[in-house]
This record gives sequence, C-alpha cells and structure tokens, in this order.
Amino acid sequence: MKAFAKVRPEPGIQQIDAERPRIRQHEVLVEVKVTSVCGTDYHIYKWDEWAQARIKPPRVIGHEFAGEVVETAADVTSCKVGEDVVAESHIACGKCYQCRTGNSHICERLAILGVDVDGCFAEYVKIPEHNAWPVPNGVPLETASILEPFGNAVHAVFAADIAGNDVTIFGCGPVGLSAVALTHMSGALSVTAIDVNEYRLKLAEQMGASKTINSKSSDAVAEVHKDTDGRGAGVVLEMSGNEHAIKDAFRTVRNGGTVILFGIPSKEVQLNIADDFIFKEAHVRGIVGREMFNTWYKLQAILQSSKLDLKPLITHRMPLIQLEEAMKLVGSGNCGKIVLTP
Amino acid sequence: MKAFAKVRPEPGIQQIDAERPRIRQHEVLVEVKVTSVCGTDYHIYKWDEWAQARIKPPRVIGHEFAGEVVETAADVTSCKVGEDVVAESHIACGKCYQCRTGNSHICERLAILGVDVDGCFAEYVKIPEHNAWPVPNGVPLETASILEPFGNAVHAVFAADIAGNDVTIFGCGPVGLSAVALTHMSGALSVTAIDVNEYRLKLAEQMGASKTINSKSSDAVAEVHKDTDGRGAGVVLEMSGNEHAIKDAFRTVRNGGTVILFGIPSKEVQLNIADDFIFKEAHVRGIVGREMFNTWYKLQAILQSSKLDLKPLITHRMPLIQLEEAMKLVGSGNCGKIVLTP
Amino acid sequence: MKAFAKVRPEPGIQQIDAERPRIRQHEVLVEVKVTSVCGTDYHIYKWDEWAQARIKPPRVIGHEFAGEVVETAADVTSCKVGEDVVAESHIACGKCYQCRTGNSHICERLAILGVDVDGCFAEYVKIPEHNAWPVPNGVPLETASILEPFGNAVHAVFAADIAGNDVTIFGCGPVGLSAVALTHMSGALSVTAIDVNEYRLKLAEQMGASKTINSKSSDAVAEVHKDTDGRGAGVVLEMSGNEHAIKDAFRTVRNGGTVILFGIPSKEVQLNIADDFIFKEAHVRGIVGREMFNTWYKLQAILQSSKLDLKPLITHRMPLIQLEEAMKLVGSGNCGKIVLTP
Amino acid sequence: MKAFAKVRPEPGIQQIDAERPRIRQHEVLVEVKVTSVCGTDYHIYKWDEWAQARIKPPRVIGHEFAGEVVETAADVTSCKVGEDVVAESHIACGKCYQCRTGNSHICERLAILGVDVDGCFAEYVKIPEHNAWPVPNGVPLETASILEPFGNAVHAVFAADIAGNDVTIFGCGPVGLSAVALTHMSGALSVTAIDVNEYRLKLAEQMGASKTINSKSSDAVAEVHKDTDGRGAGVVLEMSGNEHAIKDAFRTVRNGGTVILFGIPSKEVQLNIADDFIFKEAHVRGIVGREMFNTWYKLQAILQSSKLDLKPLITHRMPLIQLEEAMKLVGSGNCGKIVLTP
Repeated sequence: MKAFAKVRPEPGIQQIDAERPRIRQHEVLVEVKVTSVCGTDYHIYKWDEWAQARIKPPRVIGHEFAGEVVETAADVTSCKVGEDVVAESHIACGKCYQCRTGNSHICERLAILGVDVDGCFAEYVKIPEHNAWPVPNGVPLETASILEPFGNAVHAVFAADIAGNDVTIFGCGPVGLSAVALTHMSGALSVTAIDVNEYRLKLAEQMGASKTINSKSSDAVAEVHKDTDGRGAGVVLEMSGNEHAIKDAFRTVRNGGTVILFGIPSKEVQLNIADDFIFKEAHVRGIVGREMFNTWYKLQAILQSSKLDLKPLITHRMPLIQLEEAMKLVGSGNCGKIVLTP
Repeated sequence: MKAFAKVRPEPGIQQIDAERPRIRQHEVLVEVKVTSVCGTDYHIYKWDEWAQARIKPPRVIGHEFAGEVVETAADVTSCKVGEDVVAESHIACGKCYQCRTGNSHICERLAILGVDVDGCFAEYVKIPEHNAWPVPNGVPLETASILEPFGNAVHAVFAADIAGNDVTIFGCGPVGLSAVALTHMSGALSVTAIDVNEYRLKLAEQMGASKTINSKSSDAVAEVHKDTDGRGAGVVLEMSGNEHAIKDAFRTVRNGGTVILFGIPSKEVQLNIADDFIFKEAHVRGIVGREMFNTWYKLQAILQSSKLDLKPLITHRMPLIQLEEAMKLVGSGNCGKIVLTP
Repeated sequence: MKAFAKVRPEPGIQQIDAERPRIRQHEVLVEVKVTSVCGTDYHIYKWDEWAQARIKPPRVIGHEFAGEVVETAADVTSCKVGEDVVAESHIACGKCYQCRTGNSHICERLAILGVDVDGCFAEYVKIPEHNAWPVPNGVPLETASILEPFGNAVHAVFAADIAGNDVTIFGCGPVGLSAVALTHMSGALSVTAIDVNEYRLKLAEQMGASKTINSKSSDAVAEVHKDTDGRGAGVVLEMSGNEHAIKDAFRTVRNGGTVILFGIPSKEVQLNIADDFIFKEAHVRGIVGREMFNTWYKLQAILQSSKLDLKPLITHRMPLIQLEEAMKLVGSGNCGKIVLTP
Repeated sequence: MKAFAKVRPEPGIQQIDAERPRIRQHEVLVEVKVTSVCGTDYHIYKWDEWAQARIKPPRVIGHEFAGEVVETAADVTSCKVGEDVVAESHIACGKCYQCRTGNSHICERLAILGVDVDGCFAEYVKIPEHNAWPVPNGVPLETASILEPFGNAVHAVFAADIAGNDVTIFGCGPVGLSAVALTHMSGALSVTAIDVNEYRLKLAEQMGASKTINSKSSDAVAEVHKDTDGRGAGVVLEMSGNEHAIKDAFRTVRNGGTVILFGIPSKEVQLNIADDFIFKEAHVRGIVGREMFNTWYKLQAILQSSKLDLKPLITHRMPLIQLEEAMKLVGSGNCGKIVLTP
C-alpha cells in the first residue's frame, strides 16, 4: 500500500510502498477514508528535538483519521467489518496502575499511533479494537477525522469550571479554536482568544470568541485585567505552547482561578512561583490526550446535540499525495484544520 | 407607612398602617420601588403548617424587592443614600462556624426577611448594609426585584456539572424556569422540563427547554430514559417540592449522576434508599438560598453578559394594593413571576 | 466437588455435589482456601424479599474468599497457576457507558459472584482473570479472604473528607467496624460508633472508636450534637441499613456535612427532605461495591503500611461444613467476621 | 513601650521605644505574652530583595504571638478585655470579590501584620477584632504563639487528599515539620521528609516521618520512585522554597498526582512544562496563609483532639531581648520554632 513515512533521521517526509499491516489479537484493520494533520506530525516532519528523541525511523506517521473496518482478529467483539470508525490514538497497556484506576490516558506505558507505532498517513492502518470508536450517527467522515484533536479540547475545557466565568484562551490553533467553541457553548460569560496570527484570530471569532487580542500588537494581560474589573480571568486555557503565552497565562488568571496547561513548549520555561502560583493560590492542571472514554462519550453527545458547529474549523481539503504542501501550510499558521483523502 | 402583614394567626393578609422601620448599627433604610411574590409568601398567606410553626404575627411579609437607599446608620460604609439596591434576604449572624467558614447562607442562627423580621411588602424596609447589593448597571428595577429567586436557581444549577450533560428539571415555577434558562446557557446537551401545568411548560420552552413533559399525561421517567439510551439524566434538578416529582427525580438520574433537591415538600417523603441512592451511587445535594456572595457575583455577571434573558419570566405586573389577587394567581399556577409596585 | 447452594426457592442452605466449574475465555479456576460470610449470604439463607426477587436456584452462594489459581484459559495473561488470589466479586460487562468511563463498579449489566453466578462456598470457583487480585505480599490468606468487604469500607470512607472532621458511624457489622478503623487511621478527630449490640460496640472500641453509643439505651443524635458544640458531625457513615439509623444519620450531620449511605434497608424509608437535605445543604452519596481497581490499590497499600490491623475483625473460624452454624451466628449479631475453610 | 523594628532600609533590627498603638473602630489592643520567629521575619532582618520591595521603614516587625486583650474599641463585640487570644496575621479588606466569596485569605487588598502594619515584636500590638482567635481551652500560651504557622501547614495539607496516599515533603522548617505531623495523622501511608539539614531531619522523624532523606547526600527523586514501585508520590508538599527542591517536587509526583506549592523561592524557577505538568496531568496548587476561619476551626479541633503533639516543634525559648540571636539561629537552620517572651 501507499504510505507516508519518516524514513531516515532527518527533516522531511517520503512516500513509500509499505506492506499492509497484519492484525493480531484484539486488533482491527481500517481502510483510511479521511485523515487530518496535527501539530505533532509537523514536529516529526521538521525533525525537531522532541522528534529526534522519540521517533525511531522508519515510521509511517499520522494519527487522526476516519475510515472503514475491513478486517478484524478472531477474538474481536466490539467492532464489525464494514463499520466506520475513528481512533483514540493513545494505546494504553491496560494493566498498569493508571489503566486500572480509570486513567488509561496517562498510562505508564503509553504508545501513540503514528509516533511509537505505524500511523494513518496510509491506505490502511491497524488499531486495537479497544481504540476504535464508531463514527457517531449523522457525523460526516470529514468531521469524524478531526474528533481526536477536538477531544483534546473537550478534555481540557471540561477539566475547568466554565459556566459563569470569564475565560481567556491563549493559542488559536485547531485545539484552541475548538476550546473557544466549547467554552462559548458551556456558559462562559466572556471568551477572550489570544494569538499572533490574524487568520487564526478571525477563525476564533467565527468559533464564538467574544473578543480577540493579537498579542503582537497589544498587551493581552493588561486588556484582560481591564475587562474583568482588574481581577483577572477565572479560567485560563494555555493551548499555544509558546513560552511568552505560558508566562502570560499565569499573569492573566485571577486569585484562586484555574490555569489549564495543554500546549507543549519546546524547552523549559522560567516561572514566578511566588506571584503566579502561591500568592494567587492558583489551581494549575496539565492536560494530555483524552479520557478513555469519558471524553468520547462527551464529544459524541455534543456533536449530536448540534450545540456546536465544527465545520468552520476545517479550512483546507487536499489529496493525501499533497502532504508536504499541507505540512508547509501548518508551518505558516494560515490554516485551521487540513483534511486529506488517500 | 402602608404595609401588608399577617396580623393574626389565620389565613389571609391585611393592609396596615405601620411605623417606618428605625435603623440601627450597620443597617440601611430602603424605599421599595418594585417587589415580587414568592411561593413562601403564598405559604404564609394560606397559613399552612410550615407558616403556623414559623411566623409570629404581626409580621410584615415579602422579601423580594428593589429600591432606593434613603437612610443609613452612622457606621455604614458600603452603601450610600440615593443608591438603588436589592437585598439578599437571608440575614446571617456573622459569628457562627458556618458564617466564619464561608457558608453564611446556612448560618446556624439564620433570620429571613419577611419571615422572621419585617419584610418588603411595604413602602419602606430596613436591612443590614451587608445584605444590600447594588442594582447592577443596566439592569432595570423590575428585573432587579426578582434577582433573589433567580439567585436560588444560580446556586442550584452551578452546584452541578451541567456542560455536556443531559439535564432534567422537575417543576417550572419561577425558580425552575430560571434553572431552565441557566442550564441551557451552561452547555446542557438537553434540558427536559417537567410540570403538570401547561402554562408553565410553555414558559419553559421560551426559557430554553429542549423538551417539555406534562407528567399528568406522560410517564416522565420513562421518557427521559428513552431519550438517554436507557441511561437516565446526568443531572436532575428537583424544583417543585412535589412528593411524586421527588420520587421521580431519583428514578430519572443515571448511575453516578447528581440530584439537586431545592423544592420543599410539605411533609416527609418515602424513598427507596437501595435503588435510588446506593445501587446508583447517586450524588444528592440539598440547596437553599444563595451563597453570600458568590451567587450574587455570578448572577450579576450573567445579566451583564446578556447570555440569558429574564424578561419572559415576568408575566404579570400589578400595584401592590392588589397583593391578594396576586396571591390567588400564584395559587393557580398560571403565572411566572408577578411584580408589584407600592 | 462439594459446595453449598440454595437449591430450592425457600429458606435454608444445602450441601451438594456439584460439577467443578469449566472455565471459558479470560477465566481462571481457583481452589478456595479460606472463605468468609457476608450479610448478603445471610439474606439468601433466610430467603428474604430481596433474595426471592434476585436469586434463581439452584445457585452456589458465597463471594468472599482467598485461594490458589489451579487452571487458566489459554488467553489469560494476568494470572498464573499457583498464584494466590482474592476476587473482586462484581463482574462488570466492560462495554457499557459506566465501564468505559472508569465506573465499572456501577456497570449497567453488573453480575455478582454467588448471587447471579455460582459462588465460592465450594472447593473451586471460577472468575474472570480481570477480577482476580493477587494476595498482597505478607498478607495471610485468612485476612485476604475478607478484603472484599474491607474494600467496601475503603470505598465508603475515602468518598468523604475525613481528616480534621468529627465522624459518626451507624452500624458496627464487619464493614462498619472496618470503617471505624479506617476513619481512625485517616485523621478523624473523633469516631463515634453506634449500634444496638454490645458485642459489636466492644469490637468498635478495639478497632479505634473514640466513643461508642448503644442507641437502644441512649439518644445517639442528641449525644453527637452535645459532643460537637451543637453543630453535628461533619461526616456520617450509615453502614447498618436500619430504618431508624438512616433517619438518625440525617439528623446527626451538621449543616453542609456529608452523609454516606452504604447499608441497605429492607424497605422504603420516610425522610424529611426539608430539614434533612435542603435546609442543611447536606451532601449525600450512595456507595456500593468497590472502585475497580482504585479501591484495591488503596486497600493493598493500607495493609502493607501496617497502619491498620484487621485481625480483631475476625472473631470466629470454622470448617465450611459448619456453614449453617455460621449463618445463625451472623443472625445473632454476636460476631465480627466468620472465616470458613473448605 | 519597647519594640523591635526595622528602622532604616538596611540589614539588621533595632530595639526602639515606640508609642503604644492606639486602637480604632473594631480593633483591640493585645499585650504580647509569647511571640515566635518566622522565616519572613528573617527575610526582613537580612533585608533581601523581597523585603526591600515590600517593607517601608520604620516598621515594628513580628506577626506570630499569643497575648491578652487589654483594651477594645467601643464597637467591638467578639472580644473581651482579659481574654487570651492569638492572631490571624492577614488583615483582609472585607469588601473585595475574594473577601465576599469566602476567600479573604487571598483578599485583593491584603495587609500583613509586621509587614505592612506594625507587628508583635513589642509589648503591645493592635489587631482588628475579626483577626483575634481565642486561645483554645487547654492550649498553653507557648503553643498558642505558633498556631499561625501551624495553620499554614493545616491549610496546605488539607488542600490535598492525604489518606491512603504516599506523601513526600520537601523542606523541614517549622511549617514543613508541622505538615509531617499532619500528614502522618491524616492517614498518609508513608511520609517521606526531605531536607539538607540533619538537625531538621531528626525533628522530622520525631514529628512522624516514616523516612527522611538528606538531599545533599542522596538522590531524593530516585529514592521516592524506588519506594513507590517506580510510580512516584501521590502527593508532594513543597515547603522549602528552594529552587532545586521545587524542580524535584515535580519530578517526584506520580502521573495524576498533586503538588502543593507553599515555600517561596527568592527568584524565578525554570520548569519543564511538558514533562512535569502536561504528560503527568499533575494537579498543582499554590497555598498561602490560612483560610479564614476554616483553618482555625480545624487547627483548634486538632489540638483539642490530642491527635497531634506540637511540643517537639519548639526547640528554643529566649527573652525577646535576644531577638538578634534568634535571627541568627533561624539563619543556621539548626532549630525548630523559637519562642520569645517580651
């Protein structure tokens, strides 16, 4: 089959002819119908420090997709051939302390699709049956292909107390934009979206931001304080991974408020423990992945309730063969979600 | 001044000439501009068992109002003459364990305006400065007069985890209707409102219910289960105080879900501890009054955000002199909130 | 093999010759080394209303035991022949909403060992590998045989905020007694244990109660209020299932406090919703079973830390052949835990 | 009266003759009977960066004490002359959002005794009546004088879920040592205390640590992981303010665990947001001061329950005149709490 892989330990991505994956116990084979590009894919493409430390080439990459089950192992009971599914991309061991206490998304031996095992920028991909989630009734495959990153936002937003609070969101990439829509839906009294890219700030408005701030040209921290009687935001979601935004996130939250950290910076960040954590009695929580499968039940119900529209989030559609072009577009920041068809 | 009082221990209400209240330390005198009728006033009017046990006539009743401060004690620092205010009607002692741990709304020596001390169905009413809340900018006095009961709904709704949940609300009186609007605003995926009165069910639709059920003609418990894949509602708000509704509330919640009890039944209720509490691992919480003053900050911010419209809730306007007619209307159930002007 | 079963729909228990259970996918066969008697077994023995509605004879009963794995299905990966194990007695489906969101102990299709499937009052019992928990290092088999009910207490006690609180426990059966030891260990400032049986109140003292009250001869509610400055207990654990104790539990808790309901009454109970739930803003939570497997990790760590001694809890040891005598002893209340050896 | 003050903006402390404080509305005058030294006093003594930015000389310093009320303003209702009291040292405005929502310890206009207003290293000190807490029955004045810092530990420890968890505490100063005793009392399965000073590690053992580690000679992070099956501690309390300890605190906590930050570092700290917060889904919370007055109710009840002994914490007693010697002792680290008598 055709696939895109990191073949050698260097920047770039290559189309290869790969063997179709062979399924084992409790696994299913899925024919990829739509796939989408994640920032993680771009890190691997660029071959940054994180990628160099984590990826063992050759590796087929990609982990966001929707497709049809075409083969199942003999012991599979929860999936059928012909069914459309999406994938939870985190493959948990099922046996560690975290897995056995309802927290398999922080499994002690976690593997990630397209990172630690071969991924979905290919005609076929195999996943454990446990990781297959049926495409919810009425949800188009294109939308289904971005449920995995949308689930990041669901997990992050529902970890905080949104209703009746002023919310500030740093970073308007696809997960940040999803968080804008989710906080707007969840009764935030104001949703202030912050980024340095005007294209993305426009998208934030479309997704429901009550105000957008370009932090290149304005002092975002000061503006949020001005808008909240000098008190600061009740909830701050850091979805950018940018060092300056992380520092600003702590300065933006009010005494006793909540900071959710989701965006991953490329290196260590210097923080003011006294002013940012202690004197404020800030509640800070890191968020990763999606709760298995509480987040998936939630996101399915949200889509089916029609309380939120993900369509504006998908800004570009291409054939998978143009993956390199998609990567460059991600690098520019002038896009929402890019979906690709093999 | 003119006032309405329970003069003798018997049903009914009487207009009287009363002395204008004399303020003491930390108190302010307010000229009542708009007042509204609560179910509690109706219990006192009808002189039911609860009223007989609690009220010591003569007592000027009424506790929901907006008005203008016309006099302040010498030591008052937080209110000025000329300011428009509404009142938190629960007068806390400020010195007990509950008051000193942030829970003055469940003060061990709580007194209620219009119940334990003279109330606001009068030209003037006195309150502690601590209980005066400035009418939020841009909120009309009429709306301000119903912030106290709206606050009940804010406290009840924000005690549960609404966003991303299916919510069922039993009872569509003014507090139940406010809860409909608040859960709708707060990202409930569905809001099912249940009552036996068609007039109120229509109002529930206007306030944002996604579905209404008349429990006289339909099996509400069965319908909610049908609508939630047989699982039950994630959150149930019991705002009616009706015995059957209370029992149904427990049957409606799903395993691990939350039941908020706000409506006060007139007598004891027989409950199935095993099926309704234990096997379900239900989280049940009683709610009374409003958090002082977290609830007031929240409700003010909600009104100012324009995310919710309270106007449809006020269905009748009358001069205070027609209080008895208002009482009868409350008894019929064919009303939302009735506001009265002295 | 020899086993004890409810053979006909009537009171009593019979020794039978049964076929050794045949294991299927993901199951293991365990040779029972020690077993213990639960109140549930006694309900089945007596054939009360609950038992009549739930049990389909013939049924081998019993669900608390420790034993050695003697056979495993081909696909079993987490257990080995020769290993000593105890069993989580709740068999969850693994596929429903509750199971997939970390709450398999309130699975929508729960089956219970010795109730819905054949149990452990026998020489051999089969269980899913998922339900087998290795006997913790250093824990004798006898103690291991009572970890399942001890887990009930762990789940109940850790659901409340014990440290720095006054705690009242109604009911001093084995689970109530375990709760006494756990709350004592967890920093309760006082642990008041209430029962009607002097034998059990003595055991409560041994397990760490700071005070015991015989509610036949004293007004328990009044005493707790006297001991807590008239405020009531911060946490009340209802472990008896007795109707009067349940009512008293609500009267004993202070405003804003927590009531944990664990004991299952035989019929409906009349409660004062206004005074017991609403005006108090009580937090009430039903508790059933054990969290899979958070509770098991906790109980194992507790035993291994030696912060708590379960030995006084085991008051009687008999051969399994004397099961009927054990049942009568349970009925008398003059025992802690009775362990039986096949 | 005699007092100790920072007279000029430079290192050191001076004895002065000061006017006895004049009380105003809602204030009381207290004759200081016992006072104790806090790390904050030492920062002011040494005149470090924080002190230079915050203190406006001349300022009488000191904020931990017990004494007798000798005068009260006319409007004081909660204190009487002759009563022994200790002080909550944080003076809140009572009118801001935080104060009116039960969080006056993070008041937006907080003033601290001995920092922003004159303190207690003197014969007399004045405080708002609101800040006076009666010395609990049976508690000696000497112990009473250290309730304020003990309250820090109560607030920090009760913010986390201790019972059934492995706890690691960085920093064995008086607050860290109190936290050792409190976590031991609250059902921690293990309490590992870490410091670089052997004197303090010995005290930690006396206060209930199950293990102590000198981080100068051992790799504390590695040891805790070894002791917890490689998983890390469920709760980590950072009470040192040391940069290396703060970094280690994040490395020590297990996935999904809790880090409480209390110790205040002198400058910014570089943190690994990805590994320490996000991939772990750590819950991080800053803690400052004491909840008013939940913490005080708790600490009073703890002392009266005799579940914890604070006596080993007081290692030195001196006349106040030797304050400079006490300061040097604090600087050496070779002490627990030093109490001084004027």
